[in-house]
Amino acid sequence: MFKLFPSAPITSVNGFLAGAIYAGIKRQDELDLAILHSKVPCTVAGVFTTNRIKSAPIILSQRHLSQKQAQAIIVNSGCANACVGKQGLADALEMARLVAAKLDILPEKVLVSSTGVIGIPLPMTRIRTGIEKIRLCQGGHDFAKAIMTTDTKPKEIAAKVDMGGIKFTIAGVAKGAGMIHPNLATMLCFIATDALVNTEFLQSALQKAVDISLNMVSIDGETSPSDCAFLLANGLAGNEMISFDNGETFQEALNQVCVYLAKSIARDGEGATKLIEVTVEGATKHAEARQAARTIVSSPLVKASIYGNDPNWGRIVAALGRSEVEVRENKLDVYLNDICVMKQGCPASFNIEQMRIVLSNSDSILIKVRLNLGNSRATAWGCDLSEEYVRINSEYTT
Amino acid sequence: MFKLFPSAPITSVNGFLAGAIYAGIKRQDELDLAILHSKVPCTVAGVFTTNRIKSAPIILSQRHLSQKQAQAIIVNSGCANACVGKQGLADALEMARLVAAKLDILPEKVLVSSTGVIGIPLPMTRIRTGIEKIRLCQGGHDFAKAIMTTDTKPKEIAAKVDMGGIKFTIAGVAKGAGMIHPNLATMLCFIATDALVNTEFLQSALQKAVDISLNMVSIDGETSPSDCAFLLANGLAGNEMISFDNGETFQEALNQVCVYLAKSIARDGEGATKLIEVTVEGATKHAEARQAARTIVSSPLVKASIYGNDPNWGRIVAALGRSEVEVRENKLDVYLNDICVMKQGCPASFNIEQMRIVLSNSDSILIKVRLNLGNSRATAWGCDLSEEYVRINSEYTT
Repeated sequence: MFKLFPSAPITSVNGFLAGAIYAGIKRQDELDLAILHSKVPCTVAGVFTTNRIKSAPIILSQRHLSQKQAQAIIVNSGCANACVGKQGLADALEMARLVAAKLDILPEKVLVSSTGVIGIPLPMTRIRTGIEKIRLCQGGHDFAKAIMTTDTKPKEIAAKVDMGGIKFTIAGVAKGAGMIHPNLATMLCFIATDALVNTEFLQSALQKAVDISLNMVSIDGETSPSDCAFLLANGLAGNEMISFDNGETFQEALNQVCVYLAKSIARDGEGATKLIEVTVEGATKHAEARQAARTIVSSPLVKASIYGNDPNWGRIVAALGRSEVEVRENKLDVYLNDICVMKQGCPASFNIEQMRIVLSNSDSILIKVRLNLGNSRATAWGCDLSEEYVRINSEYTT
Repeated sequence: MFKLFPSAPITSVNGFLAGAIYAGIKRQDELDLAILHSKVPCTVAGVFTTNRIKSAPIILSQRHLSQKQAQAIIVNSGCANACVGKQGLADALEMARLVAAKLDILPEKVLVSSTGVIGIPLPMTRIRTGIEKIRLCQGGHDFAKAIMTTDTKPKEIAAKVDMGGIKFTIAGVAKGAGMIHPNLATMLCFIATDALVNTEFLQSALQKAVDISLNMVSIDGETSPSDCAFLLANGLAGNEMISFDNGETFQEALNQVCVYLAKSIARDGEGATKLIEVTVEGATKHAEARQAARTIVSSPLVKASIYGNDPNWGRIVAALGRSEVEVRENKLDVYLNDICVMKQGCPASFNIEQMRIVLSNSDSILIKVRLNLGNSRATAWGCDLSEEYVRINSEYTT
């Protein structure tokens, strides 16, 4: 049994403190450096970008994660610390050491994460001063703000779980906005829980939750060298160890936290005016349902139609067709916000003007595709494509 | 030995006539129905979309092509004749029959091609009248205009070949603009030659030429259900049969015709202000060089940077990283218009302001990536991403 609390900070989890500061990495006076700290050591799980070019913090955190224990995360926005040669790893390591010294823990217990422009070295002088100055408190909301780049709003949620009288919390925070595509989008996601969780189960649970949530989000087909999701479990809830045999409720709550964050990321995609949710049903294989849903939600032409409130379902079918999944045209049904637009491969009769009004008035567009070939289904999330996406990304860097 | 004549019409090939008309398929009064006709039967080759959803004309033309002979092509713009159920094939077949009757040839010798909106049946009454009214003449330029959808200009070229005193011509015409991505982009391409060419060699030559040209173009990552390229050889040049043993010059001229058309399509992509050419060198495998070049040229973030004249090479490297090809960061060199921006995985020192001016003043941007791992190379073409792409595609249909 659990209840979701959207916008609740990661510090709503017992034993976790956070703090953030403007260190001067971003140009504007916005929070850009943050620390999350658990009073006690945590079991930890992580999933990482599939990009072959990995940022220095990703390489370092993968190394630290192999110990399956962590107690703090240091994260900055404004600079990805990627593609800067050997200096990158040296800087990431120094960040871990400075935080370790500040918190009196081992550097190996610090995970490091950076997001922002690629190919620019970190301004280490400012980061050193920044780490020194950060005050750890119930600063979850500030933490959520400090990891943002082109995000327009923070993304936070907590699940309060009651497992047979034992209560614990799972809270997550994420950033997204651009360079976002399946297989860990350009996103950072940090999740904390005070539950006591078995290490192997924790990794498996995170992977499962990410597979149906963050890995099903696409803003623009890009995958960043900095993507990662971490889950820290400090065990302060005093519960019996959660593992594969009794982990169902934990898994379900974690799934919901991750799906909420995934949808928040999609809705806040660069230049987005609408959330797009694509569900593909009736596939012969689960992998095909996933592939089809992700291809449709990533299609620039589908995204542009939705932006224009244009029920141009031909583009949905064309995207489906190029997704390389099994399709039989004469079995295919397509729905837009529950209105049938294609039935058994033929245009369904619907009122185009009414449909335009329905689309105009919705800030969430549901695309449902029924392949009618099997029993597998999957859902993916994305956003529409507006002129604003282009404006943001032609003016972003240097 | 051959010479290229950009903008020369397809009717510069001996024995080919063409004509076009405004039949009323498009809303605006623009040419939208065209016929290409060879006085004598031709050997024919074709390559088709990889999209699993195929338009009715594609299905019909694949069937007709299996006979390896053709004498006419009928093509319309404004309506793709895709996703309209059984009516689609019936309509495509009727178009072939009407053209066959008009030209006094067998319907199986007519190839049919349609491009435009998906999910709308063809206005057959208008098409019947249109086919009747088309006057066949040296109307190559009109043919090129009639196949356009959101293209802003026609794409035509001829190669005049001299093979040991025997002269022949290869001329091609194409349309592109949107739904354009490798593995036959949303494009139509029609090529005619008066050379006498062996059937198997003709198919092989077209496939080879398309692989290094049209299949290396990406506007937006979309592949349409209507893509096709046809090559008709009517043999009127009186040459000795061209085949695998003596086909080198023919292949080279055909390659150049296709590369020219591919670049024209890229340069005229929806909303494009610049042509982007990406060359990847030093890959261990040719397939990896192709994959890397296509991923970079398709990256929305790379495309948006180029539009903004922003030398944000980190995005090039991030796109390369997600392309799943072998990359060693510390071996990687990247050049923008021949200026080194990344050397052995580290930022190269270049003057950003000067680079902005270089980019602003160029309407062709050359991205060169050296993997320094092997000897394979490939080139892909695309265009920048502007607000105009979004405007066009949010307002296009219905």
